[in-house]
Amino acid sequence: MNELFLGIDIGGTTVNMGVVTPEGRVLVEKKNPSVVHQGVEFVLARIAETVEKCRDIVGSDRSIVAAGVGVAGLVDGKNGLLHQATNFPGWLDVPLTAKLADLLKLPVTMDNDANVAALGEYTFGAGRGFPHMMMVTLGTGVGAGLILGGQIYRGAHGAAGEFGHITIDVNGPRCACGRAGCVEAYVGSNGILRRLRELLSQFPDSSLARYDFGTLTPKEIHQEARAGDELAQLVFHDAGESLGYGLGTVVNLLDIQRIVLGGGVAAAGDFLIKSAQKILDRVALSESDNFKIVQAELGELAGIVGAASLAMSLK
Amino acid sequence: MNELFLGIDIGGTTVNMGVVTPEGRVLVEKKNPSVVHQGVEFVLARIAETVEKCRDIVGSDRSIVAAGVGVAGLVDGKNGLLHQATNFPGWLDVPLTAKLADLLKLPVTMDNDANVAALGEYTFGAGRGFPHMMMVTLGTGVGAGLILGGQIYRGAHGAAGEFGHITIDVNGPRCACGRAGCVEAYVGSNGILRRLRELLSQFPDSSLARYDFGTLTPKEIHQEARAGDELAQLVFHDAGESLGYGLGTVVNLLDIQRIVLGGGVAAAGDFLIKSAQKILDRVALSESDNFKIVQAELGELAGIVGAASLAMSLK
Repeated sequence: MNELFLGIDIGGTTVNMGVVTPEGRVLVEKKNPSVVHQGVEFVLARIAETVEKCRDIVGSDRSIVAAGVGVAGLVDGKNGLLHQATNFPGWLDVPLTAKLADLLKLPVTMDNDANVAALGEYTFGAGRGFPHMMMVTLGTGVGAGLILGGQIYRGAHGAAGEFGHITIDVNGPRCACGRAGCVEAYVGSNGILRRLRELLSQFPDSSLARYDFGTLTPKEIHQEARAGDELAQLVFHDAGESLGYGLGTVVNLLDIQRIVLGGGVAAAGDFLIKSAQKILDRVALSESDNFKIVQAELGELAGIVGAASLAMSLK
Repeated sequence: MNELFLGIDIGGTTVNMGVVTPEGRVLVEKKNPSVVHQGVEFVLARIAETVEKCRDIVGSDRSIVAAGVGVAGLVDGKNGLLHQATNFPGWLDVPLTAKLADLLKLPVTMDNDANVAALGEYTFGAGRGFPHMMMVTLGTGVGAGLILGGQIYRGAHGAAGEFGHITIDVNGPRCACGRAGCVEAYVGSNGILRRLRELLSQFPDSSLARYDFGTLTPKEIHQEARAGDELAQLVFHDAGESLGYGLGTVVNLLDIQRIVLGGGVAAAGDFLIKSAQKILDRVALSESDNFKIVQAELGELAGIVGAASLAMSLK
């Protein structure tokens, strides 16, 4: 096989690009700053230049046959339209795949970053061999991509996968979206900090007491949890339980086999997963060896490898 | 088109059979008692006899080309196995489609009753034209069948669609399944009666006060709601709200376009749907014209027409 695939991950800060083998190995990796204010044509021209450099590095005996694009936003993959991009305020209804196909002289396909990450983990990562799975990205928000029957599931209007905004407690705390008791209100960064504030008075000796809560991140809470701080551990334990209830809903509704956790907060997976799996085992109707929560495997390469696996689906 | 399809709905009390046109019209309808205690072979032989009678009625210029079977239980449609039947305690791992195909000299396919009902409403009923939909059957329990991308969605182990057991309140009332705050704990018959008992003391003049709560059914509560009883109306209003929260989870996760309500309790749809739709509009992230809750259309023929539409999928 001399065919190679291009993965393009358009983020708010950088555009990550890579040339990927059919086995999911990244041969070349390149980064551009996103230069959001310069507009679509400029960003795409920079991508095209960088792809030329990648082609030079790869050499002439292997050729790139298709490109996949992942972007945070509302994507109409079927028609190749980027309706709205989270990090690019001016990009509205951009025919991104047609423009890129023209510049790169390649077939191009596109999807939102959550779906692309899920496909990457399914094809080459922690979801391999499990055609019914969900990849959950934990960060400020809680995003998800669904793979059902071995394919990205997008729903009727491309809006599927809003796992962060399913309700686990109609009387629960307010979510950033305005609703009550969403998964994100417990498992998103702000939900984790809210829980920390609730519990702090019970743990006056916690090492977390000396942090400035205005700038504290889940990463630091995780460090303290690893160092043995009880409060930090409890905060992740509780977030994991809420995550487990949300996942129970998904398992009961969709009978999925794997839940892959990625994103910043998922780094605390050692504390999160244990309590999440315990709740999931309890609330799922199916036998507990039918499903499992695991950490993502692709790490920083997820965007590139995922986008490349999307390109492979064109073949 | 002279091709006809057989729909067989195996229930605990009766086996309903019908000959259905490709347009979903029922030409012939037959009922057998289920005679559960007589065993598989006996029941299937009775079905075969009845099918012969159907063939005689249809005449020789049109022919039945395939049969579909719906049955309450755990079904492995791919391998044609009925693992376990809700109403037939002795039926375990029955190769039902092979046995019936042999007796009827027809290709046979089978699925559980919830999936069959959903396919029927999608093909010929209230879900027509909406390839992403869910049919919810409201009764003692709350069952559901999912149509995703125009096809029955079964999940990894055929266990998908447990909408009744998704959590809307982790601190909610106990469900028959042992878990807390499931949709069924609010919207199933027992959940509705529980809510009635909670509210009764606030409505001493309610016409429901004179009923024996040991035998009271949602049907009677519905009659009183229609007659103007405030308590009865409030009970359905509250059940509708809980249903709406559950449906919000499904719409946010799966981006479905239609929710079709069927079953005994759904007869009270006029009271249920209004409050359910109101909550759904509030909790769904998608624009509210993207999804709608509607009543099922196939009524008593749902089992036959659904099973026949399953047979059509064989062609």
